[in-house]
Amino acid sequence: MNETHEAVLLVSCPDREGIVAEYASYMHGHGMNITQVDQSVDAEHGDFRMRMVVESDGRGRDLSTMRQELEERSRTDSTHLHLHLSREPTGVAILCTKEPHCLQDLLQRHESRELGCEIRVVVSNHEILQPVAEFFRIPFVHVPVDPASKEQAESTIQGVLAEHEVDLLVLARYMQILSPGFVRDWDQRIINIHHSFLPAFAGGSPYRQAHQRGVKLVGATAHYVNAELDGGPIIAQDVIACSHRDSVRDLIRKGRDVERTTLARAVRWHVERRLLVQGDRVVVFG
Amino acid sequence: MNETHEAVLLVSCPDREGIVAEYASYMHGHGMNITQVDQSVDAEHGDFRMRMVVESDGRGRDLSTMRQELEERSRTDSTHLHLHLSREPTGVAILCTKEPHCLQDLLQRHESRELGCEIRVVVSNHEILQPVAEFFRIPFVHVPVDPASKEQAESTIQGVLAEHEVDLLVLARYMQILSPGFVRDWDQRIINIHHSFLPAFAGGSPYRQAHQRGVKLVGATAHYVNAELDGGPIIAQDVIACSHRDSVRDLIRKGRDVERTTLARAVRWHVERRLLVQGDRVVVFG
Amino acid sequence: MNETHEAVLLVSCPDREGIVAEYASYMHGHGMNITQVDQSVDAEHGDFRMRMVVESDGRGRDLSTMRQELEERSRTDSTHLHLHLSREPTGVAILCTKEPHCLQDLLQRHESRELGCEIRVVVSNHEILQPVAEFFRIPFVHVPVDPASKEQAESTIQGVLAEHEVDLLVLARYMQILSPGFVRDWDQRIINIHHSFLPAFAGGSPYRQAHQRGVKLVGATAHYVNAELDGGPIIAQDVIACSHRDSVRDLIRKGRDVERTTLARAVRWHVERRLLVQGDRVVVFG
Amino acid sequence: MNETHEAVLLVSCPDREGIVAEYASYMHGHGMNITQVDQSVDAEHGDFRMRMVVESDGRGRDLSTMRQELEERSRTDSTHLHLHLSREPTGVAILCTKEPHCLQDLLQRHESRELGCEIRVVVSNHEILQPVAEFFRIPFVHVPVDPASKEQAESTIQGVLAEHEVDLLVLARYMQILSPGFVRDWDQRIINIHHSFLPAFAGGSPYRQAHQRGVKLVGATAHYVNAELDGGPIIAQDVIACSHRDSVRDLIRKGRDVERTTLARAVRWHVERRLLVQGDRVVVFG
Repeated sequence: MNETHEAVLLVSCPDREGIVAEYASYMHGHGMNITQVDQSVDAEHGDFRMRMVVESDGRGRDLSTMRQELEERSRTDSTHLHLHLSREPTGVAILCTKEPHCLQDLLQRHESRELGCEIRVVVSNHEILQPVAEFFRIPFVHVPVDPASKEQAESTIQGVLAEHEVDLLVLARYMQILSPGFVRDWDQRIINIHHSFLPAFAGGSPYRQAHQRGVKLVGATAHYVNAELDGGPIIAQDVIACSHRDSVRDLIRKGRDVERTTLARAVRWHVERRLLVQGDRVVVFG
Repeated sequence: MNETHEAVLLVSCPDREGIVAEYASYMHGHGMNITQVDQSVDAEHGDFRMRMVVESDGRGRDLSTMRQELEERSRTDSTHLHLHLSREPTGVAILCTKEPHCLQDLLQRHESRELGCEIRVVVSNHEILQPVAEFFRIPFVHVPVDPASKEQAESTIQGVLAEHEVDLLVLARYMQILSPGFVRDWDQRIINIHHSFLPAFAGGSPYRQAHQRGVKLVGATAHYVNAELDGGPIIAQDVIACSHRDSVRDLIRKGRDVERTTLARAVRWHVERRLLVQGDRVVVFG
Repeated sequence: MNETHEAVLLVSCPDREGIVAEYASYMHGHGMNITQVDQSVDAEHGDFRMRMVVESDGRGRDLSTMRQELEERSRTDSTHLHLHLSREPTGVAILCTKEPHCLQDLLQRHESRELGCEIRVVVSNHEILQPVAEFFRIPFVHVPVDPASKEQAESTIQGVLAEHEVDLLVLARYMQILSPGFVRDWDQRIINIHHSFLPAFAGGSPYRQAHQRGVKLVGATAHYVNAELDGGPIIAQDVIACSHRDSVRDLIRKGRDVERTTLARAVRWHVERRLLVQGDRVVVFG
Repeated sequence: MNETHEAVLLVSCPDREGIVAEYASYMHGHGMNITQVDQSVDAEHGDFRMRMVVESDGRGRDLSTMRQELEERSRTDSTHLHLHLSREPTGVAILCTKEPHCLQDLLQRHESRELGCEIRVVVSNHEILQPVAEFFRIPFVHVPVDPASKEQAESTIQGVLAEHEVDLLVLARYMQILSPGFVRDWDQRIINIHHSFLPAFAGGSPYRQAHQRGVKLVGATAHYVNAELDGGPIIAQDVIACSHRDSVRDLIRKGRDVERTTLARAVRWHVERRLLVQGDRVVVFG
């Protein structure tokens, strides 16, 4: 949907009666027209979740004030609520290492205005991808990482992210493991692409593992990063057929296509506020 | 979703402000809990469409009365509104000819309670599939059709459908073209499976056409039947890979799998009231 | 390919020069026309593998004699060679428990002559699927299994398989684990369908595991059975999309479609002699 | 397969006895080891087709001489034969207009050495994509085309192609129709990507056509260009799901992913000599 919406409301809370009516009436009462709703209840856990897209009817209600009001209401109960204003674009940083395919893909989509965000900086522990960032006129920061300097490096990265007003971190084949503290700071705001169909082949060299097991499909998984390696909530997955003729190198080549489309989809969904984490699972609104 | 809902509300109308709030408040005010909403606006045509699933909170409001009330309200404006009660199961008739795969598939899913409807009768212009219907304990009616007797045959079929209280007709590879009058009577209540990826290869022998054109995928299309042959609004489509090694017979074999899953999906969506025709297009609610 | 071939030659051996020429010349010299070849070399392990389909040019060479001759030649070196004659149909037994979908699917395809084999008997540890077998006029044998009687039950099954001249065992959701001895007897001649994308979710309740992990695709894996539970060489895999809205029951429903098509494909490939196990991997000839 | 082969033999001719044996023996006799064969017969038309990959055993036979010999033999009968030597890389020109996605994708794969060819020049009727070509250090030639100058422009292009020793032309969303004479000169050596699932939606604005028809999948088709617009032999096709929520702009965005992967696959297959045109169909060797 390429609607010219003005705000997206996300609501997550224990289910109770009247929630849809409450927010729909609030929006209507404040001069907002609802153009999209996707709401459901997880019957197993009793979790309510809703995404509501609204646009102003021109009666000029101030969205920031509404947001403040809504957030205050949610403070009094156990509701997680987020009103995202379209006029406040999402600032994105891409972390990468040496492999260009995901970086190039994201920057190209960014240039085609597919992603709906502002990619503000590219950070890498190597210099090899600098020309790619420069071609797309995105600042590139080289932050080398080695075991001894890891803490220092992460602190440098945090500075870069603050400076560029980053809201979302995308790990586009970034071959470093972020420390638990760093991950905690960016909870539900780091998206990683793992080059296997998780939970199969977590950890290193997933294509080699896949080749050895003789699977007939290889896949990729985009997920939020949490403390557990390759264990964060899954956002998107896709697979591609392979055969006995494929060497590990062939799997790597085939997998690249899946990695980049899966990662780009996850980033776009996050930016469009289609994602909501409930427990260990990601709700993907339609 | 296997929620134990009690009713599904479908609303289709020109977009205006406050519709979501209106129906959400109505439901809440009448003791109904909303468990699912899928709503969107077709910006191009200004069409509003919504599916709302509700269940009673036990305060005992009568659903039939609510339906009457809602339908009366919709009469005064240009809203198409439908409240479907779960306690009123959808009666289905399957029309078929000689090919067993779609019939068998639907009856098996029916027996596994996948489809959520009651298949009440199987009608065929041949007798060969009678044992299949009987195995699943579904009444089978043989209505031969030839050019001279077509009008008579359709009249017989109409009688059978009335007798078995049929709401939905499924053409499971039924090799007869229904007359315009018959189609009009069952507007948006006949689902057909065409064995090609429409609009490619409309008409007869689509697998032969596909083979001659050398396509690399063959497909199937489930659609509502209207006056135009293979031209009705598309509900579901799927494809399967094929190659130069495949003969027409191979395409037929491969296509059967796509036909049956695509048709079954369309039937289930109709029964779950996930479908809404707007213009020439079918809205499929999530 | 629906070619009217007469024999399929499978060759597996360490790669060396001249193998293709050797067999092609042998066939040509004995009045056989080659209609299909799929040959490749696994460069990593140095393994040669070839499938060759031949038909007689009518000069009347006896295929059984050829087979004997070829098998004798292969005995002198480390070649695994198999010449399958089309006139000797593959006898198949299906083992199942209570779930009908895979059994029904295989029997229906069998009746449509899709599988190219002769399903000769259905064996089950329950009686519930007897009517399904009977509908398709396939003998049904009830062999109850409990921990105490397992050895006895397997011995009974072996007798049934011998009596019906079975070449291939298909586990169509058979909920018993066969003993190591039994598996050894039927090495590379038992095909199982596991309801997950292996190696993810091996063991019990894979759909429940998948639901808990919040995956976005569920799958099925057809594999040869060996001593390791769910660890045998993989023949075919497929997946279907799922979402946060899907309950475990929904995953079970969606997965059934993948299970039955994946299992049927594996059986057909085995019957058409398109499969060859090399190490832990299955070569699937095109 | 990333085998270090030295030559690929393609054979297309009316089926007769002994062809596989003949070529296999020839290769073996001339010190070539066969590492891959894919051969089949189109039973309907009696067409034989084979792809054979060979590598030298080091006995030093000259491949160019072999090629000459083989080509001479084929001249005496109706065999189409082509021996492609790996040491003679395929020179490729990309023709494009304004849309960057296919160009960027091909150049990136080229840089990752995925395609196995040498992209030698980019030709465009606009200047906008010049920086993309330059980033990847590929010569860019701007050849404006307007109705009056078309003949002149094509002549200029022919000159550019000759100068850069181009063997294959790839139309990466090139928005000009090549003249019949040009197409004839490059018979079976021009690959185009059409942004629909052909034969559906041939001609202009296929995504708009698809949107109007309300299809549930959009696709792309890579095909050889012949005299008939969008009517050439189909090499590769793929599709992606869409829904009623997708505007034409959404379809364009989704379709881009399919276009670029489908086109890249077709180019790679051509370069690897996996393609053979027989009648109106393309044989794709495995």
